[in-house]
Amino acid sequence: MSGGVSSVRDGAGRGGDHAVARVHAAFDRIDAVDRPEVWITLRDRADVVAEASAVDPTLPLAGMLFAVKDNIDVAGLPTTAAARSFASAPAADATAVARLRAAGAVVVGKTNLDQFATGLVGTRSPFGAVRNAWDPTRISGGSSSGSATAVALGTVDFALGTDTAGSGRVPAALNHLVGVKPTKGLVPNTGVVPACRSQDCVTVFARSLDLARTVAELMAGPDGSDPLARPDAALADGSLVALPPVPRIAVPLPTQLEGLAPGWAAAFDRVVDRFRALGHEVVEVDIAPLLDAATLLYDGAFVAERYAAVGAHIEANRNRIGEDLDPTVAAIVLGGATPTAAALFADQERLDALGARGRTLLDGTTALLTPTTTWHPTLDEVAADPVGANSRMGRYTNFANLLDMASLAVPAGFVDGLPFGVMLTGPAFTDRRLAALAAAFAAPTVDLLVVGAHLRDQPLNGQLVAAGGTFVRAARTAPDYRLYALDTVPPKPGLVRSGAGAVGEVRSEDGSAAPSGIAGEVWRVPAAGFGTFVAALPAPMAIGSVTLDDGSDVTGFTVEAHAVAGAEDITHHGGWRAYRELVAREHTAREHA
Amino acid sequence: MSGGVSSVRDGAGRGGDHAVARVHAAFDRIDAVDRPEVWITLRDRADVVAEASAVDPTLPLAGMLFAVKDNIDVAGLPTTAAARSFASAPAADATAVARLRAAGAVVVGKTNLDQFATGLVGTRSPFGAVRNAWDPTRISGGSSSGSATAVALGTVDFALGTDTAGSGRVPAALNHLVGVKPTKGLVPNTGVVPACRSQDCVTVFARSLDLARTVAELMAGPDGSDPLARPDAALADGSLVALPPVPRIAVPLPTQLEGLAPGWAAAFDRVVDRFRALGHEVVEVDIAPLLDAATLLYDGAFVAERYAAVGAHIEANRNRIGEDLDPTVAAIVLGGATPTAAALFADQERLDALGARGRTLLDGTTALLTPTTTWHPTLDEVAADPVGANSRMGRYTNFANLLDMASLAVPAGFVDGLPFGVMLTGPAFTDRRLAALAAAFAAPTVDLLVVGAHLRDQPLNGQLVAAGGTFVRAARTAPDYRLYALDTVPPKPGLVRSGAGAVGEVRSEDGSAAPSGIAGEVWRVPAAGFGTFVAALPAPMAIGSVTLDDGSDVTGFTVEAHAVAGAEDITHHGGWRAYRELVAREHTAREHA
Repeated sequence: MSGGVSSVRDGAGRGGDHAVARVHAAFDRIDAVDRPEVWITLRDRADVVAEASAVDPTLPLAGMLFAVKDNIDVAGLPTTAAARSFASAPAADATAVARLRAAGAVVVGKTNLDQFATGLVGTRSPFGAVRNAWDPTRISGGSSSGSATAVALGTVDFALGTDTAGSGRVPAALNHLVGVKPTKGLVPNTGVVPACRSQDCVTVFARSLDLARTVAELMAGPDGSDPLARPDAALADGSLVALPPVPRIAVPLPTQLEGLAPGWAAAFDRVVDRFRALGHEVVEVDIAPLLDAATLLYDGAFVAERYAAVGAHIEANRNRIGEDLDPTVAAIVLGGATPTAAALFADQERLDALGARGRTLLDGTTALLTPTTTWHPTLDEVAADPVGANSRMGRYTNFANLLDMASLAVPAGFVDGLPFGVMLTGPAFTDRRLAALAAAFAAPTVDLLVVGAHLRDQPLNGQLVAAGGTFVRAARTAPDYRLYALDTVPPKPGLVRSGAGAVGEVRSEDGSAAPSGIAGEVWRVPAAGFGTFVAALPAPMAIGSVTLDDGSDVTGFTVEAHAVAGAEDITHHGGWRAYRELVAREHTAREHA
Repeated sequence: MSGGVSSVRDGAGRGGDHAVARVHAAFDRIDAVDRPEVWITLRDRADVVAEASAVDPTLPLAGMLFAVKDNIDVAGLPTTAAARSFASAPAADATAVARLRAAGAVVVGKTNLDQFATGLVGTRSPFGAVRNAWDPTRISGGSSSGSATAVALGTVDFALGTDTAGSGRVPAALNHLVGVKPTKGLVPNTGVVPACRSQDCVTVFARSLDLARTVAELMAGPDGSDPLARPDAALADGSLVALPPVPRIAVPLPTQLEGLAPGWAAAFDRVVDRFRALGHEVVEVDIAPLLDAATLLYDGAFVAERYAAVGAHIEANRNRIGEDLDPTVAAIVLGGATPTAAALFADQERLDALGARGRTLLDGTTALLTPTTTWHPTLDEVAADPVGANSRMGRYTNFANLLDMASLAVPAGFVDGLPFGVMLTGPAFTDRRLAALAAAFAAPTVDLLVVGAHLRDQPLNGQLVAAGGTFVRAARTAPDYRLYALDTVPPKPGLVRSGAGAVGEVRSEDGSAAPSGIAGEVWRVPAAGFGTFVAALPAPMAIGSVTLDDGSDVTGFTVEAHAVAGAEDITHHGGWRAYRELVAREHTAREHA
């Protein structure tokens, strides 16, 4: 999740040699991460270098590298929608792509997807199931599987996806990314293979909200070709953008949050608390009409729009089902041949009624806050139940396009070391309002290594949580760090990098080899909260840079040199927690002696 | 077309005794016109009197009487949609009706319609074909047949219709009425039997634009019940209302005006000239995408929405087809069972593309001006070809709702003594802009009797045409008028009412009985143009009131008394044209002598 182009995020104004260097870094990173299933077509490195070196460095996205879901046209590259039999050779870029290239961004390649953008899992592709960036045994989420994973792996700055039922948001959540799903029609669909033509949106994946929003804005506006493209009503009606003095955040009823993966309900509660901490009002709203609308997308006649889009191709290639055509996708699309137009009108009537009820219930709220998806299955779990596993994923995403809503998925910490994400959803054309809400929430964060009293089960952990911090993962320092037990209340350790000799030589008291490096935890803290936290730090504690055992650097607790003079060197315990457990055992032993 | 409540149009502020008197006048008029097929349910006179007498006279529509198409609920009256088997007994008024009653208007009854609002002819009803107000051998137009006819016959002040494919505009044109078809969703459809639920609009028929627009405004605004109701975007975006300094009126290509009834193309040209005379720019626009969209409404899968609405009822009552259920309507609706949802999505895609092309072509124009319909068949012609005759009627109306446009039908004179109407159509929410354009065009008019040099084939007729005048009908004065040949250039007659004795005593020179009254023509002239015309009138000509042979009074040319002293009395010729023809023959005879 680090290295490669991901370490260079400062955006605009890059061209020439710098841009070329970034291309090489990206291709090196693509090789290094070894996730071939992410790409359906990777451009030739030399071509990308040539294009990047020629970019005007004054353009807003100059030299930014991006990946394009393979249902969106890039001139000169095939568009497959993840079916070789469907491949076309577009002569022109999709409008979205053309606008980003005109802004200086450079396409690296075309990414894998659930075939015909039909799925939320990322496994329904003859080009291979896309493995999650954070845990390769789990799904990437889909259908924009390759695009999300390419960004999360740090191989590109951003990527384009599409979203009909959640395809631009579910994979964002599962890969700790921002996923912008604009209001329908803001970004023209010219050059995009339709999934459900009237519901499809081009979306953006990025690691930062600012970049994702910038990209979305650059793509927006009617192009004279897509009949469903719409001008941004917010340009004429500022009330769609302005945040009220006290935003009112709607959240589902507790019963409507049942069935989340273990730990996710608590994670969601923490997010809600963060909105409260920002001074926002939080109100519970019965979102049953929205959840009911969500079920219509696949259970009703609306699936016929998928048949209208690619049914003829599948009918003509039935012999390739199971090979080039994904059997689950083919079954779903072919199911769309059956419903009558009258049934569709009846479904639309139901949908209109549900939408009206939903709008009434949400009236007066600034946005709806929900988890983005409900769980994060393994590849094996999806393989065992391709439809059932998938259908759980879209509970909170399916309704947005059907009901003409804007939606924005943002990372919201980690549960058991895997990303957790939430979503802000509002009426059409409230895209900027949602972004403003998310900006406060998803402000810049600092990854902080803690090795002592701030560890999860230690007395000062509450300070981290109060600052908005979330646990990311367990980590270990490089081997040349020493840990000292300081004379503080509560007891704290001091972490010091060894200046003299390899710590590898140190032996524990019993003569066994010292553990390699000091155990700790990486926590992600909002920058604002982190500042407060640092300002309140008592001497002799300090914040510095710590090298981890994988060679990467992270912000971490260190200690002033004078403080370790005379302090007990506890390096051989391998970490504070092990040391404290020993102390506790000895204390107990003494009491019982 | 005159008498009854039609003579009392000055709107607001009537209640009590005056309102009661108007109710009696309306019911007397209903009896007098003897058009029982107009009404499906006529309220009891005493009930209406009681309601009218209780109306607060300060309300904006106090005491105004209106009729309601029988697919719109009025509490306590059955709603049949012109099928007894379908009748319901609504406990509540439709939102539109409730708002008008709250504004002081009083319902007189429920009117006949093409069954289930399926038709543009007014003949598809087991309650009888509705005869045109101006010519009982011809159709009223439909589907809002009874409502339009009730207004045109002067039995009510205004009436509510509905419009899916033109049902609120075609009958307006054929009955010389204003027909307001608001932007879809402005008037809630709560309490309206759906025809095509997503395309239906409640409409207004009235004799004056002001009243029709007032009624439309009073009905507008979401009601919290109709999911498709929309707030008026023009309230937030004034550009939808404002007229540019020089409005640009789009008209179809000449080839797109082919196939109009005899005389209608010339009548349309005169309307176009009137817009030019107002200083507007007129531009020819290829409206092929709109005309193509129009054909989709019945030829494609969209008809399934009619099946979704009432298909189940017709299926369950197949044994009543030909009796209570109109066979033409039943066949159309049952045809909606067949199309697939995928075909509907394909049609919608075609429609979206046509709409986009149409919008592009109309870009920069203020409104589209077209004839409202293409011909005015007789009842016999429709009976001979119920579907074919009907399908010609919707050429210019079918597309408006499909493409989300506002539309306004206005009277535009007469052709061969029958009403001709035009239509202004524009994007959604331009309702007020269309009304502003129409107000200039459809300003108050004066009906003027001409008996001399302004007759159609006489030398000064061009003055009437230049003033915006249109020929209404031939007419004859009451028998006690005398006509004199004045000594003017060009020659003019003087019309004088006989003060002494019955003109019936006058004998022509050859001793035959004098014709009864003087022959002339009634012309309708815009009030503004009429003022200019009168101001320029040379002595001894004057404008006064003339009594016609049916006893009604009309504005007409008279002459100052001194001018007829010594002038030749030509009364016995029966009219100026006969006299001038004789003079011409004598002149020719002299030349050949």
